[in-house]
Amino acid sequence: MAITLITGGARSGKSLYAEKLALGGASGSPVYIATAQPPEAWGDSEMSARIASHQARRDTRWRNYEEPLDLTGILQKTDGEGARLVDCLTLWLANLMEAERDWRQEGRNLADCLKNQTSAVVLVTNEVGLGIVPDNALARRFCDSAGALNQMIASAADEVYLMVSGLPLKVK
Amino acid sequence: MAITLITGGARSGKSLYAEKLALGGASGSPVYIATAQPPEAWGDSEMSARIASHQARRDTRWRNYEEPLDLTGILQKTDGEGARLVDCLTLWLANLMEAERDWRQEGRNLADCLKNQTSAVVLVTNEVGLGIVPDNALARRFCDSAGALNQMIASAADEVYLMVSGLPLKVK
Amino acid sequence: MAITLITGGARSGKSLYAEKLALGGASGSPVYIATAQPPEAWGDSEMSARIASHQARRDTRWRNYEEPLDLTGILQKTDGEGARLVDCLTLWLANLMEAERDWRQEGRNLADCLKNQTSAVVLVTNEVGLGIVPDNALARRFCDSAGALNQMIASAADEVYLMVSGLPLKVK
Repeated sequence: MAITLITGGARSGKSLYAEKLALGGASGSPVYIATAQPPEAWGDSEMSARIASHQARRDTRWRNYEEPLDLTGILQKTDGEGARLVDCLTLWLANLMEAERDWRQEGRNLADCLKNQTSAVVLVTNEVGLGIVPDNALARRFCDSAGALNQMIASAADEVYLMVSGLPLKVK
Repeated sequence: MAITLITGGARSGKSLYAEKLALGGASGSPVYIATAQPPEAWGDSEMSARIASHQARRDTRWRNYEEPLDLTGILQKTDGEGARLVDCLTLWLANLMEAERDWRQEGRNLADCLKNQTSAVVLVTNEVGLGIVPDNALARRFCDSAGALNQMIASAADEVYLMVSGLPLKVK
Repeated sequence: MAITLITGGARSGKSLYAEKLALGGASGSPVYIATAQPPEAWGDSEMSARIASHQARRDTRWRNYEEPLDLTGILQKTDGEGARLVDCLTLWLANLMEAERDWRQEGRNLADCLKNQTSAVVLVTNEVGLGIVPDNALARRFCDSAGALNQMIASAADEVYLMVSGLPLKVK
């Protein structure tokens, strides 16, 4: 089944477009896989508010999972249930780094797993490398890792879209 | 008449391309609407220099307005006079926030107003959300607001271009 | 012969795609022109590691030059030898600024030189202007200069590609 990667900047309409694709192509009810930790794990009210606004938009057709680390496991478990929407890979990368996991190996495992899915998967990610090079080493490392992960998943995807001002630009 | 949104990064050739479009499609003389405050309002010589360089490029065919806040009013007032070029929405957003106006409502009003224009409008905006997430909350908020505003106006536009190294990439 | 500009964000696959183009179109052996100073000139182990990883990827078919400043000279000197890959213009710009050279004039000279080459040239550059406007004046100036240089070279190029997650998006 089709694997689609949706990339773009902050507030470029990635999640909304990904939801449309997952709803449109679904047989069975769509599955939402959030890589954000559940809101109570955040002291951060800004992130909580963003999660709440995304949740409010999705109606009762969706089944919801929260999986900060084991994306491969949750995709295997939910394969066959309907289209899966993974939102988002950039937060997943941050979670992997925070947990000191080998993100390169996890990225390769995800790419391999995607090739074997029978139900569709739509994955959301972020472009973070098109600004001025950050002046702290950690941000530069994150920026490089996010770019490398995006390349791995784009390579495994059937279709890739860059969102610009809410509009999809087909890249693959 | 056609509504065109030109977006892109810093120094990607947005204003120059927008000027070409406004000159090409105009019947009557084109109207330039700057959202930047007049130079004397800025202590900032960097911005003054940029405004001066844009002004120097435009010849005497243009009629010039400065309107930091009331874009809807100036568009209504100048409708029928020729193509209007609004440069730029990102500065308008900053002006609205500075003045503690409701930028979401103003954005919706602008989108509605654009749908009813009889003369062409070309609007310039900026992509600011494709770099690493800024580490201060104000910059993050501005980034998110700019993305949301771009989506509103792109949705109301007939054509949208992303400028890359001075070249237009058609998005809509 | 064809002049190709490859632009994009950090870790978007620019160098790899540029290498493919240079290898594919070459008659004679390809020439690699690094604008980075040789590793021993850097105290910076991060940049050394990046240069080493790029070098390790290129096989013995390539002839390698390091030229931090005089790109026009090295292109003239190597014309006729095979396709040249210049990696990258953004570092070249930084080198010019560091050496207090007139980057605008050097950029115009490079654009003129490109128009007269008999062997192909592939140039790699970076998009750095699509994030939030940096809050220090030096970074803003660099960002503006990089955008202006990209426009000059894109204008002289026959083909321009924007790399997104390792995939080329044709802009010209």
